Amino acid sequence: MPLITLTTDFGTKDHFVGAVKGAIFSELSDAKIVDITHEISPFNITETAYILKNSYKSFPDKTIHIIGVDSELSADNKHIAVELDNHFFVCPDNGIISMIASEIKPSKIVEINIHDRIESSFPVLDVFVQVACFIARGGNLTVIGKEVKEFKKLVEIQPKVNQAKNQIIGGVVYIDNYGNVISNISQKMFQEIGKGRRFKASARRYSFTKIFTKYNQVAGNNAHDNIQYDGSKLAIFNAAGYLEIAIYRSNSDTVGGASTLLGLGYRDSITLNFINDSQLDFTPLT
Amino acid sequence: MPLITLTTDFGTKDHFVGAVKGAIFSELSDAKIVDITHEISPFNITETAYILKNSYKSFPDKTIHIIGVDSELSADNKHIAVELDNHFFVCPDNGIISMIASEIKPSKIVEINIHDRIESSFPVLDVFVQVACFIARGGNLTVIGKEVKEFKKLVEIQPKVNQAKNQIIGGVVYIDNYGNVISNISQKMFQEIGKGRRFKASARRYSFTKIFTKYNQVAGNNAHDNIQYDGSKLAIFNAAGYLEIAIYRSNSDTVGGASTLLGLGYRDSITLNFINDSQLDFTPLT
Amino acid sequence: MPLITLTTDFGTKDHFVGAVKGAIFSELSDAKIVDITHEISPFNITETAYILKNSYKSFPDKTIHIIGVDSELSADNKHIAVELDNHFFVCPDNGIISMIASEIKPSKIVEINIHDRIESSFPVLDVFVQVACFIARGGNLTVIGKEVKEFKKLVEIQPKVNQAKNQIIGGVVYIDNYGNVISNISQKMFQEIGKGRRFKASARRYSFTKIFTKYNQVAGNNAHDNIQYDGSKLAIFNAAGYLEIAIYRSNSDTVGGASTLLGLGYRDSITLNFINDSQLDFTPLT
Repeated sequence: MPLITLTTDFGTKDHFVGAVKGAIFSELSDAKIVDITHEISPFNITETAYILKNSYKSFPDKTIHIIGVDSELSADNKHIAVELDNHFFVCPDNGIISMIASEIKPSKIVEINIHDRIESSFPVLDVFVQVACFIARGGNLTVIGKEVKEFKKLVEIQPKVNQAKNQIIGGVVYIDNYGNVISNISQKMFQEIGKGRRFKASARRYSFTKIFTKYNQVAGNNAHDNIQYDGSKLAIFNAAGYLEIAIYRSNSDTVGGASTLLGLGYRDSITLNFINDSQLDFTPLT
Repeated sequence: MPLITLTTDFGTKDHFVGAVKGAIFSELSDAKIVDITHEISPFNITETAYILKNSYKSFPDKTIHIIGVDSELSADNKHIAVELDNHFFVCPDNGIISMIASEIKPSKIVEINIHDRIESSFPVLDVFVQVACFIARGGNLTVIGKEVKEFKKLVEIQPKVNQAKNQIIGGVVYIDNYGNVISNISQKMFQEIGKGRRFKASARRYSFTKIFTKYNQVAGNNAHDNIQYDGSKLAIFNAAGYLEIAIYRSNSDTVGGASTLLGLGYRDSITLNFINDSQLDFTPLT
Repeated sequence: MPLITLTTDFGTKDHFVGAVKGAIFSELSDAKIVDITHEISPFNITETAYILKNSYKSFPDKTIHIIGVDSELSADNKHIAVELDNHFFVCPDNGIISMIASEIKPSKIVEINIHDRIESSFPVLDVFVQVACFIARGGNLTVIGKEVKEFKKLVEIQPKVNQAKNQIIGGVVYIDNYGNVISNISQKMFQEIGKGRRFKASARRYSFTKIFTKYNQVAGNNAHDNIQYDGSKLAIFNAAGYLEIAIYRSNSDTVGGASTLLGLGYRDSITLNFINDSQLDFTPLT
């Protein structure tokens, strides 16, 4: 039996999540349901995309992902079911598909058209559950929707590279549970533009000349004494492959994380400057 | 294997929920456990009732619902197991059953009497789990309790209708994850009292002359431009069938929801005034 | 199929928990995963230990517990898999094992050595999931690690008993969802040192001469009127067996719990003084 995951902005207090799970079990008594999150900031598609694109690939092929964020049906916000990268997504056509998988072409998209049979002001419960369970039972997408070729494009804001190819200006796309500040600059872009040159990463009045791949590299070789480094600021390519500004072992509830301590918020800019060794006017990195 | 749901005020940080789930799996290795919520405000029976009555019906028949809110055993707070609407509820007899299903008569109620065998200061873990697993294995309620005819009545505060039948005064019963303000005035009552008359719904200094059934109806026919309506206040009969005051696509964490923006809290009053077209002293609705 | 539990400081918003669950299901399609909590304060080992030691025993034998708190691999923070009390724990060797089960000797400990095959900056996802699924399939610990005899000892701060054996000075180790303040003084220690003597328990400027075993004992015989006691402060040996200072039916979100109302925080001291009936300078208990 395929897995069904849930990603919503419902929160975990209201009856919404319970009702949706109950409806799935009423349709499919042996369903396996996994919560990805219900803590999406209300109506926030960028957050939804960040969380989903970093989690969906861990699931087995054929997993069905229900996305309940800003899903009220309207002329401008159709419901779609998408097969992409061997996963299924049941979601509003609000741009989220293009943000989840900008590099992967969906193999099939249908505009869900079972609404005439279902009067609903709670589409995740009444429509998405039906569609997901239909797919879980092996149903073909074209039975519950009309195949379409297009879906709404809403590309996440991309970092900008200057003409001289010595500067990348990115932005903060997510603040995680530890208060770590995650940018849209990928390790891949860093390598392609940087080509091994020295660099300085800057965010507000802070700068970094090293980017780690593990947090405890901030302690260098002092592995047995790394508690001394608690609270140090650092730049890292995180497990998802993005440039992140972090505070070593930070607790955002108490001392604060990078977000609060460095004053970095959603959409603030993070800049990478690369230095050619031949540059005469070279300013020492600090 | 029947489902077992959990609705508690335990929160999700402490060991309570984990311990309860472990105990269920120790009894029933193939149990299916679904969290309805653990975020009930401590000891709040009204909230518990609102959440349960809007979610339990989505679950398959024979689902067993454990309710762990204010469940410490006392002379005044017995433990009961109830069969109602083809579902089972294991809970304290603190009025919650009457609030969940005011219109549905339980088909069986027993006062749980296995406490002499179990010394416990954590009754959900030690008593409710035993009872729920016993029911899940097909056990008869009368084996674990003494059948009783009465249970504690605690009817949710009901809206008041004036003698002239042109006014309903209701109250706020719940604030949801989006900050939406939910009243105890049902669509059914609105139709029975209003009989199609024009009306004005008032909450504090705000008033509404339309009640929508979908949030995006606030945008009228401007479906392709409805982002302009973000932040508009509106009245709606929500998916649960109750009059709700909402802010279109509000984010209660940032801009605020109806609750904070309009200053509406739990138990505040919401009034519906109906207008006879023949009324001479008719004041234009604004 | 054995159960796998998760205890982390990941929070429930980020993609971390979803990714880990997806990875488990990719390895073991019939896995049963139970969240103990993801709300551990970042990097807080004491909290992790309190929550785990009070929940793991409820689970069936052979349950596998993944602990994802401060788990980045370093020379000083190896990864271990432990068989203890018929349960398995997959965790960093950061002292947590000694705090979970100070009185129970592990029957086997291995230092996980599969890291050469796995390059990872997200060890819970990449390493712990592999190890847990390997154990779930019946694999022997020695295949994925080198047996070791030692693990890091980090004993929770223990209460101190004075030489005259008439005083115990303990400390606050946890604040629960209700704002209740939990100390490290066990009922067992109280009985062994107190030997039935009268006592006074003191925390800040509050003192208690009774310690209950159920919260509603604060109402004495007035069971039918115990709403009058809402908000009373009381001392109790909680279900986990520790001395706890509580406010009867407190709501830490509104009126506040014992923690906020009495000004008691993590590591604050709680003192028990025992009184010999023969003492001449006996000060009346108030």
